[in-house]
Amino acid sequence: MMAQFDQLGCQSRRLENSFKLTRVGITGLVKPVVVHRRGEDHHLTAEIDVFVDLPSTQRGSHMSRNVEVITEMIEDSLKKKVESLEHLAANICKMLLDRHDYATYAEVRMTADYFLERRTTSGKRSVEPYKLMAKATSNRGNGLMKQVGVQVMGMTACPCAMETVAHELHMDKPELKKIRAKVPMISHNQRNKTTLMVEVPEHVEVEADDLIDIVESSQSSPTYGILKRSDEAAVVLRAHKNPKFVEDVVRDILGKLLKEYKKLDDSVHITVRSESEESIHKHNAFAERITTLGELRK
Amino acid sequence: MMAQFDQLGCQSRRLENSFKLTRVGITGLVKPVVVHRRGEDHHLTAEIDVFVDLPSTQRGSHMSRNVEVITEMIEDSLKKKVESLEHLAANICKMLLDRHDYATYAEVRMTADYFLERRTTSGKRSVEPYKLMAKATSNRGNGLMKQVGVQVMGMTACPCAMETVAHELHMDKPELKKIRAKVPMISHNQRNKTTLMVEVPEHVEVEADDLIDIVESSQSSPTYGILKRSDEAAVVLRAHKNPKFVEDVVRDILGKLLKEYKKLDDSVHITVRSESEESIHKHNAFAERITTLGELRK
Amino acid sequence: MMAQFDQLGCQSRRLENSFKLTRVGITGLVKPVVVHRRGEDHHLTAEIDVFVDLPSTQRGSHMSRNVEVITEMIEDSLKKKVESLEHLAANICKMLLDRHDYATYAEVRMTADYFLERRTTSGKRSVEPYKLMAKATSNRGNGLMKQVGVQVMGMTACPCAMETVAHELHMDKPELKKIRAKVPMISHNQRNKTTLMVEVPEHVEVEADDLIDIVESSQSSPTYGILKRSDEAAVVLRAHKNPKFVEDVVRDILGKLLKEYKKLDDSVHITVRSESEESIHKHNAFAERITTLGELRK
Amino acid sequence: MMAQFDQLGCQSRRLENSFKLTRVGITGLVKPVVVHRRGEDHHLTAEIDVFVDLPSTQRGSHMSRNVEVITEMIEDSLKKKVESLEHLAANICKMLLDRHDYATYAEVRMTADYFLERRTTSGKRSVEPYKLMAKATSNRGNGLMKQVGVQVMGMTACPCAMETVAHELHMDKPELKKIRAKVPMISHNQRNKTTLMVEVPEHVEVEADDLIDIVESSQSSPTYGILKRSDEAAVVLRAHKNPKFVEDVVRDILGKLLKEYKKLDDSVHITVRSESEESIHKHNAFAERITTLGELRK
Repeated sequence: MMAQFDQLGCQSRRLENSFKLTRVGITGLVKPVVVHRRGEDHHLTAEIDVFVDLPSTQRGSHMSRNVEVITEMIEDSLKKKVESLEHLAANICKMLLDRHDYATYAEVRMTADYFLERRTTSGKRSVEPYKLMAKATSNRGNGLMKQVGVQVMGMTACPCAMETVAHELHMDKPELKKIRAKVPMISHNQRNKTTLMVEVPEHVEVEADDLIDIVESSQSSPTYGILKRSDEAAVVLRAHKNPKFVEDVVRDILGKLLKEYKKLDDSVHITVRSESEESIHKHNAFAERITTLGELRK
Repeated sequence: MMAQFDQLGCQSRRLENSFKLTRVGITGLVKPVVVHRRGEDHHLTAEIDVFVDLPSTQRGSHMSRNVEVITEMIEDSLKKKVESLEHLAANICKMLLDRHDYATYAEVRMTADYFLERRTTSGKRSVEPYKLMAKATSNRGNGLMKQVGVQVMGMTACPCAMETVAHELHMDKPELKKIRAKVPMISHNQRNKTTLMVEVPEHVEVEADDLIDIVESSQSSPTYGILKRSDEAAVVLRAHKNPKFVEDVVRDILGKLLKEYKKLDDSVHITVRSESEESIHKHNAFAERITTLGELRK
Repeated sequence: MMAQFDQLGCQSRRLENSFKLTRVGITGLVKPVVVHRRGEDHHLTAEIDVFVDLPSTQRGSHMSRNVEVITEMIEDSLKKKVESLEHLAANICKMLLDRHDYATYAEVRMTADYFLERRTTSGKRSVEPYKLMAKATSNRGNGLMKQVGVQVMGMTACPCAMETVAHELHMDKPELKKIRAKVPMISHNQRNKTTLMVEVPEHVEVEADDLIDIVESSQSSPTYGILKRSDEAAVVLRAHKNPKFVEDVVRDILGKLLKEYKKLDDSVHITVRSESEESIHKHNAFAERITTLGELRK
Repeated sequence: MMAQFDQLGCQSRRLENSFKLTRVGITGLVKPVVVHRRGEDHHLTAEIDVFVDLPSTQRGSHMSRNVEVITEMIEDSLKKKVESLEHLAANICKMLLDRHDYATYAEVRMTADYFLERRTTSGKRSVEPYKLMAKATSNRGNGLMKQVGVQVMGMTACPCAMETVAHELHMDKPELKKIRAKVPMISHNQRNKTTLMVEVPEHVEVEADDLIDIVESSQSSPTYGILKRSDEAAVVLRAHKNPKFVEDVVRDILGKLLKEYKKLDDSVHITVRSESEESIHKHNAFAERITTLGELRK
């Protein structure tokens, strides 16, 4: 180690009979970024992970290049108004392959809190938080895949408990039909957190706001920061008229994806994950589908 | 620094014109411990923080003594069957003052997942998780205070949404009284996490299991890992017949404490905190009372 | 509950022989906010908790007013360019007392990631993340206290391990003085997270950026996202020439506060907390001082 | 929904033109378990996730069966002394396929804090925490795969900073060779968290304790709860004589796996992940290899 100083650092040292590595990079970097989405600047606090692979012949990856690339691409995005977190991730991903010439693969993950204005039943405006989960991956020479991902917190009411309560209370009699049509039976309801990720080639556009709409309309009800009394009743009523298992949430999202994205290729990757923080249990209920649009279309 | 080596380490170095410190110690130590509670061994994975104060004249606290004391007291507790996490915390706390002769104050905090067997309405056994939050503090020469603390996850159903839904649906008419007496109106319900901490002098005994009972019976309903269909209906029904704000949960606990602990002194410190993970919002509802039994008795 | 519908909600119901509550409110609300600091807009993603107290005669706090107040004050701050998170917290706090006429106390807590530009030894710019921790509390009729709080991640190198290593290797001999003056002895070093909170009356100004400077200059070395090779050596060298226990970090901050804030009143509250994620242990080292400027000046 | 009550619950309802789901189940269940490892009972607090797939024709998975299966298998393991978390996961996995007759796939994940006795250089005993990460998966009719996984916290010292510091300080001169051979150059060092997971067919045994040994001996140094002064110097010295990038940690583990597990089949899956909480940065360094023994042997 004392012999002589290598300007490139001991990362560059050559190895023999060693192993290549799948992903080498940095995790947990926090940066302010701005995306210009639908005519509006969104200032986000992004958490960023980036990786490249490493050949068996090189001791270390040049870690400091990762932060340089991220910093440059963020600065660049301020000037050129990047339109989404995915585009920014894609720009970083391509530049990583440029700067790490020994790498054959690059990957970028960015997550951030994100806000959209919503209106409650009574028309009150409420700025609601969502999560963006962007990803870009590239195998050198084989183009770039980008993932548009969102996480939405909403509400689910259990369809099964409703039936069981009705049965236990002898409320499933025909003469009570009229009342039950008007007022749903009680059930357990809870926070539901659903993630939808769509992976497409670089130049195919999928809008994160649309994915948020698809998820939010597939839970039993959206939820809001501000709810006046009648709004609160409306949310509770909507959730109980629309009871859903996590399985239902996932399938309804899959159905909407098929309808909304007819033009997207069969090869497009889809991940849907729904988790309900069950109010009657201390553990969560979970459902997931990982698939391609082609599989879903069969 | 090179002058000469101090067997006691540079922590012992004398300072002039410096500041005393309120708490110096270690956080996040994880240890397996065993408490012998009501005839049964409970094997817990405890997370431990310990602190002593430091006079203005001494540079550093002897940090390694903290882990030594904890390790010895845990080993000692295995031989002598310590009966609670609080007793173990108290033993560590006293030994800290012994070993840090420069300290006038010592504090120990221990938290651990803890399990109790419960029975659902239909009689099914379910081992439910709780959290123990033990604490011991001692000012040298002034005895020792120990805190018996528990955290219980249960369920709350909102009393207000019920009323509003009934009103909006014109279900608050007298002729519907009979049906409404039988079947509660829908509402939002959710996970509720409530903490109860009672601080007493060393030799006053307060049983954590009793505190868990008090909290669990003050939420709208307990929750269970295993629920068969009729049990699920029973939990949902119980919660809706027993709707509670977080404010109600805290006050009901305070009322029960007054009843159950008539013999405890006025000076006993009480902290009750209840947080509901509102299913209709993305944020939580929170209520708290920090007080003494004397204050409550007024 | 069926009797009649109360426009104000069942929160307003009167209680007898009940208990007052110390803090009732909401936790975990996430909102985008903008502060205009030193001529620059900082877009922050804030996590917000707000509370008021509740008299023994009223069943529930009007929770929805909390989110209304927060939303209005954030919108107001966009128009009037609020200059800090503390000012925004203060505005929310005062408005909470306005809207909850039954309350005698209000409290607001806001935390957010925050970014400042730094320069490494070689002059490279690096945008570094910090945390702001603002708080405002008010007892009706008794003015308002605001807390300016910051959390800074930096590095500490252990002074004690250096000495012990030197001793063990017989490097504490006089003839090695020259080399040791140039090259510090090896030690363990690690991430250090230090929090500084200063609580002052509403109209006294304390700048969070100054607090960040005080903390950052009191750790063994600041840390940076981007470090070229010579910068990395400079950081390592600086940390080892400046070895510190967590106790040293806290005391150095206290000393600087005394120097920098001579004009502040004796009653000003100070909290300093420093935690090192010890590289040689799996647990952390911790030091804290909670005091007033008056106490420190004695 | 009112029509008639279905004893099996509305989960059993038949769907048409719907989608199958990849994984449906529960997450975050916390249970006390006991494993009988090398003649000793280890009492663990396990966090458990279990999943099965769901055909497109069935509305919901029978969620309560999951907790029943877990509970039964844990009770069974107490009687029969299960020898590892992986064996328990395997037993639960097989029973899940038994009880969910509509499922073709089952998956079980269990993680737990786990403790082993270690000795420091000076011979002091220290009970150190590790994490076990067990997994079992089974495709009906195709046997069962189990994953033996461990997470170990240790220490890394950076080899590159050492060289750069030496260079910057002109310490890389030949005449200083003797001193540098004795006392390593300063560097940054930090906590390193490394995960090793080996996936093998059900009846192939891989001992988690051995995997822990492999990881712990591949970091720059193990770390300990208790360190007397000379032990502390020994750990610091060992780490600096053994400087490692995260890349080195991963590769050294891969090399040891090849040596230690010559008898294991080429198809055995290996995942190694190493993350260093860089003391000079606020973000982490990360390296990973996901592969098979066959790939590594090439």
